[in-house]
Amino acid sequence: MGCNLAIAGITGAVGQEFLSILEERNFPFDSIKMLASSRSKGKKIEFKGKTYTVEELTNDSFDGVDIALFSAGASRSKEFGPAAVKAGAVVVDNSSAFRMDPEVPLVIPEINPQEIANNKGIIANPNCSTIIGIVPIWPLHQVNPVKRMVVSTYQAASGAGQSAMKELETQSQEILDGKKPTCNAFPYQIAFNVFSHNSSMKPNGYNEEEMKMVNETRKIFACPEIMITCTCIRIPVFRAHCESINLEFTNPITPDQVRELLSTAPGVTVMDDREHNRFPMPIDASGKDDVLVGRIRQDESIAGNRGINIWVAGDQLRKGAALNAVQIAEKMV
Amino acid sequence: MGCNLAIAGITGAVGQEFLSILEERNFPFDSIKMLASSRSKGKKIEFKGKTYTVEELTNDSFDGVDIALFSAGASRSKEFGPAAVKAGAVVVDNSSAFRMDPEVPLVIPEINPQEIANNKGIIANPNCSTIIGIVPIWPLHQVNPVKRMVVSTYQAASGAGQSAMKELETQSQEILDGKKPTCNAFPYQIAFNVFSHNSSMKPNGYNEEEMKMVNETRKIFACPEIMITCTCIRIPVFRAHCESINLEFTNPITPDQVRELLSTAPGVTVMDDREHNRFPMPIDASGKDDVLVGRIRQDESIAGNRGINIWVAGDQLRKGAALNAVQIAEKMV
Repeated sequence: MGCNLAIAGITGAVGQEFLSILEERNFPFDSIKMLASSRSKGKKIEFKGKTYTVEELTNDSFDGVDIALFSAGASRSKEFGPAAVKAGAVVVDNSSAFRMDPEVPLVIPEINPQEIANNKGIIANPNCSTIIGIVPIWPLHQVNPVKRMVVSTYQAASGAGQSAMKELETQSQEILDGKKPTCNAFPYQIAFNVFSHNSSMKPNGYNEEEMKMVNETRKIFACPEIMITCTCIRIPVFRAHCESINLEFTNPITPDQVRELLSTAPGVTVMDDREHNRFPMPIDASGKDDVLVGRIRQDESIAGNRGINIWVAGDQLRKGAALNAVQIAEKMV
Repeated sequence: MGCNLAIAGITGAVGQEFLSILEERNFPFDSIKMLASSRSKGKKIEFKGKTYTVEELTNDSFDGVDIALFSAGASRSKEFGPAAVKAGAVVVDNSSAFRMDPEVPLVIPEINPQEIANNKGIIANPNCSTIIGIVPIWPLHQVNPVKRMVVSTYQAASGAGQSAMKELETQSQEILDGKKPTCNAFPYQIAFNVFSHNSSMKPNGYNEEEMKMVNETRKIFACPEIMITCTCIRIPVFRAHCESINLEFTNPITPDQVRELLSTAPGVTVMDDREHNRFPMPIDASGKDDVLVGRIRQDESIAGNRGINIWVAGDQLRKGAALNAVQIAEKMV
C-alpha cells in the first residue's frame, strides 16, 4: 500500500533525480503523475518498467494526489501549489516560494523532522547550499551552540538547471577549440572561470543565495541569534557544491571532538585523511547521498579554542534538492 | 644605462611572464642571462628582437650580474641563490626558500618598499595568494587595523606551473570525450573538480599554502598580532586566483569607506557594480596588473559595524609572481 505521487517539473535536472531516488529507495507508491510545462506535454518517460506520459501542470493536476513533489521554480510553486493543497495533497516544494513563510515548515530530516507534522499542506525544502552546509553543523551545534559562521561556497552549475550544466560542457569545448564561449544559461562565462552568484542583489550588497543561507539556517535551527555571513560563488563543476566553513562555538571544542560527533551523525561521512591529503571533492560527492566533511581543524584565530574550520562537499541535485524532498515524503508515508 | 639581469627558471610559466613584463614596462637592462636546468640548455628564446640561448643554471652563472630574478623552485633557490649573492648580484627570489628568514626582506612594493634597502643580497617575493589577498587589505589596515581575517581561496592551475595549466586543458578534453582524465601534474582531477591545496600538511592540519598566508602577511604588515585563518582550494581555472576574504577591523568601517580607500590605492582596481552583478572574475584579472576587488559589503555578523567582506581576483603569474618581482627590481635600479 503506497501513496499517489505527483512530480511537478519532471523534465528538469531535479525532476529526473527524483525518479532515480524514488527507484533506488524503493519508495512505496501506487501511482505517479509526471507533470511539466506545456512544452513537455506528451513526452514519454520510462520509470520502473512502465512508460509514463508527461501531463501539463495545471490547477486540475492534483485530483487524488497524496504527495506532490514540486521542482518547477518558485513562480510555478506559487501558481499551482495552492491548488495541490486544495485537492488534498501535501506539497513538498523545492523552490524558494514558501521557505520563509512562518506557516510553512522548512525541513531537513536529519535536523528538524518534527516540523513535518506541523504542515498546513506545504513543506518547504531548503536551498541546496543551506542543506549541504548545515547538515554537518547541526550535530555540533546541539552540543556546543555555534555563535557565528563564515561561509564561502564553491557551487556547481547544476544549481542553475540542466541547461547550465550543458552550457558548462559546451563552453569548455568552445574554449578548448579556441572559440569565444556562448553565454545563455549564465550571464558570464562559467567554463574555466568563476563568478559571484547571479541571484538578485539585496540592498545590503548580499545576493539572494547568500541571504538564503542566513535566513534558512536560523529557521531550520530554530535559532534566530546565530550569526552568519556568506559569499556565494559559482564554479565550473557539474553537480556537487563545496563550502569552506569557519565556525565560532560558544565553548571550547577540538577537531577530535568534531570528528567524533560527525562520525555517527546521520547524512554525514567524514573524509579527513591529512596524511594522504585526501579530502572531499565534488567528484567524490557526485551521486552520493551523504555530505562529505574534511579539513577539520582548529581555527587558532579565535580565542579559547572555540574556532573550527571545515570543508564540505555534497551533491547539489541529491541531498541539495531531490533526496532531501524524498526523505521528507518518506517521513510522511 | 641599465643593469645586467639574470633570470633563473626562464622556461617556466613565471620565467616567460618575466619576459613579457620586462618588455611591457621597458625595464632598463644592458644584458640578460637566460638560465634554466640542463634539460633546457641551448634552447633559443626571442626577446625584444634578439635571440638568446638558454644557459644551464650553475654556481658560475652570475659573473657581472646585478639583479637575478629566481623562479626555479625553492631547492634551486637554496642551491644557487648564495652563489649569485657571492658574485655580487641581488637575488629577487620567487620561491618560498628564504621568505621567513628574518635576514631577508619579504616585499610587496605597494606595502613595504622600504624593506628593499635592508637586503643582504636576497629579497623574497611573497606567495601568490598572499600578494593577491593583501594588496587591497593594506590600505584599509593602515587607517583601521585588521584584527582578524578569514580567507578562502579559489586558486588557478598556473600556481603549479605550465604542466598543471596544460593538464587542466588535457583533462577537460578527456572528460568531454568521455575518457578517464590523466593525472600527472596534480594528484587529483582538476578539470570540472576542485581539491584542497596539495602542499605539505602541517601537524595543525593546515597545509603549507595556508600557513604562508598567515606567516607572510604578519611579516609583510610587520604586524605579528594579526589573526588569520585560511583554506586554500585549487579550482579549474587557468591563471588568476580569487579569494573570499572576511575582515574584522578594530574600529567601525563602512563599505563606502572601503570603496573610497581602495579607489586611490596603488595596484588595486575596484570592480563592484551591484546593479549589474558585475564583480571580479578570473577572466577579468588574467593578464592584468591590478588586483580587482568587489563584493564590498558590511558583515553584519560582526558587532559594531567592524566587519567587511570582500572578493578579490588577481593574475597569479603577474602580480602573484613575476610582476611583483619586477616591481622590486625597478625600485632597485
